Amino acid sequence: MTLAGWKQLADSKRQSILDAIPERWRFQDPIRPTDELRDVTGAYIQQFLAPREIEITATDALGIAEKTTSGTWTAVEVTEAFCHRAALAHQLVSCLHEVFFDAALDDAKRLDDYFATHGKPIGPLHGLPVSLKDQFHVKGVETTMGYVGWIGTFQGKNDPRSKVFESELVRELRSLGAVLYCKTSVPATLMCGETVNNIIKYTTNPHNRLLSAGGSSGGEGALIALKGSPGGFGTDIGGSVRIPAAFNGLYGLRPSAGRVPYEGAANSMDGQNTILSVIGPLATTARSLKLLFKAVLSQQPWYHDPLVLELPWRDTVEEETRALIEKSKSGSSQLAFGIMRHNGVVRPHPPIARAMKIVEQTLTRLGHKTIEWSPPSHTIAHELANATYYLDGGADIEHHFGLSGEERPDRLLFESGPQKSASEIAALNVKKREYQKQYLDYWNSTAQLTDTGRPVDGFICPAAPHAAVLPCKYDHVGYSTFVNVLDYTSVVFPVTRADKNIDVPRSETNFLSEIDQRVHGQYDADAYDGAPAGLQLIGRRLQEEKMLTLADYIGNNVSKSL
Amino acid sequence: MTLAGWKQLADSKRQSILDAIPERWRFQDPIRPTDELRDVTGAYIQQFLAPREIEITATDALGIAEKTTSGTWTAVEVTEAFCHRAALAHQLVSCLHEVFFDAALDDAKRLDDYFATHGKPIGPLHGLPVSLKDQFHVKGVETTMGYVGWIGTFQGKNDPRSKVFESELVRELRSLGAVLYCKTSVPATLMCGETVNNIIKYTTNPHNRLLSAGGSSGGEGALIALKGSPGGFGTDIGGSVRIPAAFNGLYGLRPSAGRVPYEGAANSMDGQNTILSVIGPLATTARSLKLLFKAVLSQQPWYHDPLVLELPWRDTVEEETRALIEKSKSGSSQLAFGIMRHNGVVRPHPPIARAMKIVEQTLTRLGHKTIEWSPPSHTIAHELANATYYLDGGADIEHHFGLSGEERPDRLLFESGPQKSASEIAALNVKKREYQKQYLDYWNSTAQLTDTGRPVDGFICPAAPHAAVLPCKYDHVGYSTFVNVLDYTSVVFPVTRADKNIDVPRSETNFLSEIDQRVHGQYDADAYDGAPAGLQLIGRRLQEEKMLTLADYIGNNVSKSL
Repeated sequence: MTLAGWKQLADSKRQSILDAIPERWRFQDPIRPTDELRDVTGAYIQQFLAPREIEITATDALGIAEKTTSGTWTAVEVTEAFCHRAALAHQLVSCLHEVFFDAALDDAKRLDDYFATHGKPIGPLHGLPVSLKDQFHVKGVETTMGYVGWIGTFQGKNDPRSKVFESELVRELRSLGAVLYCKTSVPATLMCGETVNNIIKYTTNPHNRLLSAGGSSGGEGALIALKGSPGGFGTDIGGSVRIPAAFNGLYGLRPSAGRVPYEGAANSMDGQNTILSVIGPLATTARSLKLLFKAVLSQQPWYHDPLVLELPWRDTVEEETRALIEKSKSGSSQLAFGIMRHNGVVRPHPPIARAMKIVEQTLTRLGHKTIEWSPPSHTIAHELANATYYLDGGADIEHHFGLSGEERPDRLLFESGPQKSASEIAALNVKKREYQKQYLDYWNSTAQLTDTGRPVDGFICPAAPHAAVLPCKYDHVGYSTFVNVLDYTSVVFPVTRADKNIDVPRSETNFLSEIDQRVHGQYDADAYDGAPAGLQLIGRRLQEEKMLTLADYIGNNVSKSL
Repeated sequence: MTLAGWKQLADSKRQSILDAIPERWRFQDPIRPTDELRDVTGAYIQQFLAPREIEITATDALGIAEKTTSGTWTAVEVTEAFCHRAALAHQLVSCLHEVFFDAALDDAKRLDDYFATHGKPIGPLHGLPVSLKDQFHVKGVETTMGYVGWIGTFQGKNDPRSKVFESELVRELRSLGAVLYCKTSVPATLMCGETVNNIIKYTTNPHNRLLSAGGSSGGEGALIALKGSPGGFGTDIGGSVRIPAAFNGLYGLRPSAGRVPYEGAANSMDGQNTILSVIGPLATTARSLKLLFKAVLSQQPWYHDPLVLELPWRDTVEEETRALIEKSKSGSSQLAFGIMRHNGVVRPHPPIARAMKIVEQTLTRLGHKTIEWSPPSHTIAHELANATYYLDGGADIEHHFGLSGEERPDRLLFESGPQKSASEIAALNVKKREYQKQYLDYWNSTAQLTDTGRPVDGFICPAAPHAAVLPCKYDHVGYSTFVNVLDYTSVVFPVTRADKNIDVPRSETNFLSEIDQRVHGQYDADAYDGAPAGLQLIGRRLQEEKMLTLADYIGNNVSKSL
């Protein structure tokens, strides 16, 4: 394709997204420049909404589902409120790839009719709008995944499934009663902690538009932060759910592989199976993550996706965890947590270091034992992850950029390299397994330190070395990628916000590494002011029930501490 | 190493195995030639045993565990009986790589002391001898895996773990109270349905020494068939548990990946993760498989092997399955099964075709619905499996043969080829997943045909196109490998024996394929006479509790039908 060709295609796609927004919801005046208007959440966006719309969209996903499954609120009014707010969100931070409000309102109408006829909801997500990262195929709209070359195709190919086929998760969400209404922005390649592509350009952070919304599920993060969605699904192969959750003040779940069905979703480097990308929900509360995650499991996805494990939501695990929490309230804590202030490679910026302190103090206040987390070297995990993401030497990414000949945005420049061979990949898989085994043994060894007779229940650590990052300054993703190497369960939860008056730059001369020095130098107290600072609660593999329960408990108590 | 070098090393290792057998248990006279003495099981081997030894060794693993965990039988007397019988077995069919009877008797003595002191067993396998395929590391002895180049090393390397390190499963078996006393023969490479290597030469079938004991867990199959072990553990990446189980008239379980810990065991092509090798038990009864499998799960292997799923034995699944069986007895069957008489590539020999009929008639007699199993093409599965086993172009195998420069036995000749690249492997993984999805959808679709309102509970098919095979005539492994592609649960159960008077060669002109014609031509009613004919009961992924329960039920009823 000629230069003019791909630019024109991208421009026209960008325009078509705006055109899909009803006239009455479009801003008439240009938005004020970022240096005058950093934060567009809360009061700013609400000025464009009716009180009833504010009431609905300020409610978390679980709260909404309670209203819509009981017939208190109609699916249509809820859907319309979120369509309106999502339309505003996109105009503010460029977070949508696909807009299909009309289809959503038709679906909502059908749901209301169903309720009227049967006197009961169609499922636990009846009437709940759910947003989707632009990897999921939804009938009637495209999936570009940020590639210009995918416009008008099915994953870059001529294929009859284009605009007709739906991903397995989409099918399940519909059968649960969810209303699908938009798909959210991603960086082309998906392999980036910011969200940038030639179609929607750059998704900025709604809390501080100087900063990134994170990536690769950056559109989800920005949209939910603006309450243009009560919850949605992203994917995570190196932090892509957790980074946007942390950067936008949200909760986000990175489940272990094999729980949420990836079947029929688009992906980068599909078939690379050393580290599997997983799907996880983002929302404003832990209880909403649970709602979404548990609802999907209720569909028995293992009968429809060969990679999903037959592992329904385990009430017993949830109950056992609640019992441990309750016992702890009566004085003798049954819970213990590791605290990992830094990963030995890069020390976090002051807002994140402070968030770590807040959580540690909260846990101590609640009577729980905390221990220093001194795991096997995270440098090894970081190297394993980087090697895995580069197994094909960039061939997949190059192919998809090549479809249109589009320029690569700055943050998505990769140097092509040689493909790894079967023997090299096998050797990497063995190294990874050995690292996982070391980490497992380390975890077990903490039983000596916890006073509970058991190893720690989880550990707390940063999701990134910084709060929502300055564009092009995301230089160390090791805080999120090691979780993917280990295939552990991680829940990101919001803790605080960067505050230029408290989080003053620290002086440092004793750096952990060259990259530590660089990251240190990138801290700018003023620029970061107001940026959400979230952390990770990490549990063993396949511990979603336990970690969601603990994240709800810890998150609520952290907010009480503030 | 020079020619003389590797031969001498292999000869001396072979002699050392015989030397480890106490003098009193060695045959003084040469064994009669095969054409005079085909079957060495039952009365033949028992002539060398005392009545008490026969009583003990004729008992199945569960029966023994009942006696040893209750203090009725001592661990020492049970261990001694099996050591004796294993020693005879090895001299008859060449099925052992390592013999460590003295260590076993010391362990048994300690177990008896424990019982005497505490009045209770150390665990559910207290005093039960368990044999292990020679991939598991046991302190005090070597692991050669059939490679001459591994003699005197740790997996072909100088490594301080040699003769000291124990595999995770070994550690768990010890803590369950099992007595380890021998390791069983395998084909070098492990990638073979017969058991042959330059150390022990060839493991023959105890029921008919003209035939193969199968592979790659051939030593396990032969040893258990001769009741030199009540049960043991093999591994299966393409049929290596199931083939020896079927060829030796045993039960064998191929669980889905992620249930039994492989951590710390030797393997071929370690790190290849398109199709994972899995560990499974072999024994003379289904209830003994359950004992071994459930005992391992009770050790919570997921805390010690990062690839094991946190999935304890699910009593509820077992109970639900039993309830379906019970309900069926009262007249209206709640169970339905697929019947796959052939896989579209090769038709089975007459003894296997007859075994299929026996099982189909048994199921019908029990009132269960059977349907024709018409799945997605098994040719695709066969191609996916073959491509996977050859991803490294034979590099791993070549390396290990090369350590000693040993000649490759006929059955283990592979032509080296190019390594597959990361992109090629990813494409293969995608194709495999697509195939798994098609099979899953097909399985779901059978709900229309079963009369139970649910899809089939499992399906029955051959484990190989022939009963225990004539040496060098195993030309189609597609009956077992497709299960590994799908990662399904499979239990092999014994059905009948080849009978030259009944299983007369059929005339055939309409062949399914060239290989079908070749396999057809290899049937020799006289040579196969007496060969065990087992079949597979196949369930969905991770359905071990259900499939073991159904295999017990079907297997017992089949034997009543005969």
